[in-house]
Amino acid sequence: MPPTLNDIREAAGRIKPYAHRTPVLTSESLNQRTGSQVFLKCENFQKVGAFKFRGACNAVYSLSDEQAARGVCTHSSGNHAQALALSAKLRGIPAFIVMPNNAPSVKKNAVAGYGGHITFCEPTLEARESTLERISFDTGASVVHPYDNERVIAGQGTAALELLEDVPDLDVILAPVGGGGLLSGTAIAATEIKKGIRVIAGEPEMADDAYRSIKAGKIIPSVNPKTIADGLLTSLGKLTFPIIQKRVEQIVTVSEAGIIASMKFIWERAKIIIEPSSAVAVGVMWEKKIDLSGLKIGVILSGGNVDLEKLPWQK
Amino acid sequence: MPPTLNDIREAAGRIKPYAHRTPVLTSESLNQRTGSQVFLKCENFQKVGAFKFRGACNAVYSLSDEQAARGVCTHSSGNHAQALALSAKLRGIPAFIVMPNNAPSVKKNAVAGYGGHITFCEPTLEARESTLERISFDTGASVVHPYDNERVIAGQGTAALELLEDVPDLDVILAPVGGGGLLSGTAIAATEIKKGIRVIAGEPEMADDAYRSIKAGKIIPSVNPKTIADGLLTSLGKLTFPIIQKRVEQIVTVSEAGIIASMKFIWERAKIIIEPSSAVAVGVMWEKKIDLSGLKIGVILSGGNVDLEKLPWQK
Repeated sequence: MPPTLNDIREAAGRIKPYAHRTPVLTSESLNQRTGSQVFLKCENFQKVGAFKFRGACNAVYSLSDEQAARGVCTHSSGNHAQALALSAKLRGIPAFIVMPNNAPSVKKNAVAGYGGHITFCEPTLEARESTLERISFDTGASVVHPYDNERVIAGQGTAALELLEDVPDLDVILAPVGGGGLLSGTAIAATEIKKGIRVIAGEPEMADDAYRSIKAGKIIPSVNPKTIADGLLTSLGKLTFPIIQKRVEQIVTVSEAGIIASMKFIWERAKIIIEPSSAVAVGVMWEKKIDLSGLKIGVILSGGNVDLEKLPWQK
Repeated sequence: MPPTLNDIREAAGRIKPYAHRTPVLTSESLNQRTGSQVFLKCENFQKVGAFKFRGACNAVYSLSDEQAARGVCTHSSGNHAQALALSAKLRGIPAFIVMPNNAPSVKKNAVAGYGGHITFCEPTLEARESTLERISFDTGASVVHPYDNERVIAGQGTAALELLEDVPDLDVILAPVGGGGLLSGTAIAATEIKKGIRVIAGEPEMADDAYRSIKAGKIIPSVNPKTIADGLLTSLGKLTFPIIQKRVEQIVTVSEAGIIASMKFIWERAKIIIEPSSAVAVGVMWEKKIDLSGLKIGVILSGGNVDLEKLPWQK
């Protein structure tokens, strides 16, 4: 069952003691550049630097004490792994994280820093899934999928809930799409709270499986996508696909050049650090494939985890 | 006459329609790293990307209509030039800006973009001052000094005023010091609003003229300082020196390595873009030459104008 607005409201109450209520920023330069009135929901300021903390925290705190005592587990090398490790740490339960053995050491260290128990495996989806299955079986830990999970989707929806509390009269909400957890939660919250609001997703041209899935009417998996937006490499899931089909107006693809230009513009003008996946949502306005001029647009900036030693505009 | 708290309150009312009330952000990582509870006053989000807009705007809007009609002028190649040009544009009056002919084109373009009339001169202080004198004489434009000006100091003090409205129980306020405009305004606002609050300045070790001036009891001019904190190269002025002498507890010098490390930490953990001059204030906590542990500390982040193509931690 897809989560309801009520599930999202409950999630908001559940994570409130742990998550940041992130600020909504505006930038006149961005308004001028896009011809719209833009409101940036700054999940780059969220715990672990990304919206992922909302969903993981909601999932962890939704468990009964008995379930929770056995811990949680997932496979991820990205923000979800850190988010789950921190959420588990806050509840005082173990988090078992399966990571590919070629994951960058900065990511391993981050998960270990939050007290996560890491198991390494071969860097294939099969190895990750079979390793996770074994760990879950051995420990009794609850699997928390990064996006195809009702509690996670409900948690991610709390960002849009807050955004619409702060700016109720938005015409459009933009969010990036990878596996669709953030987009699904955003779409449920937005369309239930405000009839007629348009929810539009940004997706990298070079990883346009969600765009093609919606066109085809069925999930088309992502195959070795190569994009700088490394948070958006995953394919839609069984839960997220129908929610997006029903509630998202359209998915707009964004070029790599558009992602990089949007990211740099936000850094230079709004003075905040966003990661490429966040810039994909900004890129929808930047490239102007669709006309959003004159509208009030909320943008979910998904996160701000970037390697400052390797920036995409450097030669 | 140094400005009073009342002048600062009046300035706040005067600039309110034009300036941003900037947010105050916190970062758990920063609290952990420093052992203090830190509140970041984000002037990097201010118009033109720096606190300088506050002082320039207050100066421009303090002029009578008759004075204003003749315009304003200054010599600067930095944030003050942009701030004055934008303030003048908002009031609909001319701004005449003297810039050294070797100023980077990005700075010339920024001033021109705000409609400033630029006059180039040789890159010496003498040439800048004589050119400015001539322009002021020819046009009748009011000279707005970047820091040694009551209205400018009062305007800069509005940042601390807002910070103390948001977080009234601060023990310490940290600000960087260059010419001393921000520091003077901050010190007047803070010490008048809250008896016993400690105002402490950060200054680059490599440009420590304010530190030495306070020690010597007289203004010691800065001679060809070389620091990455290029907003802090100027010397204290006749107005700012006695205010600082009276109201600032101490000036703490920060190494170049400390400035760069603090700047990178804020980018990585707080996810905001600050310029090296802002990082000098953070660096006071970073290098721990003085013990601030356990205290509630407000930090004025002076600005966020950085060339993203040339970052100091890149090899």
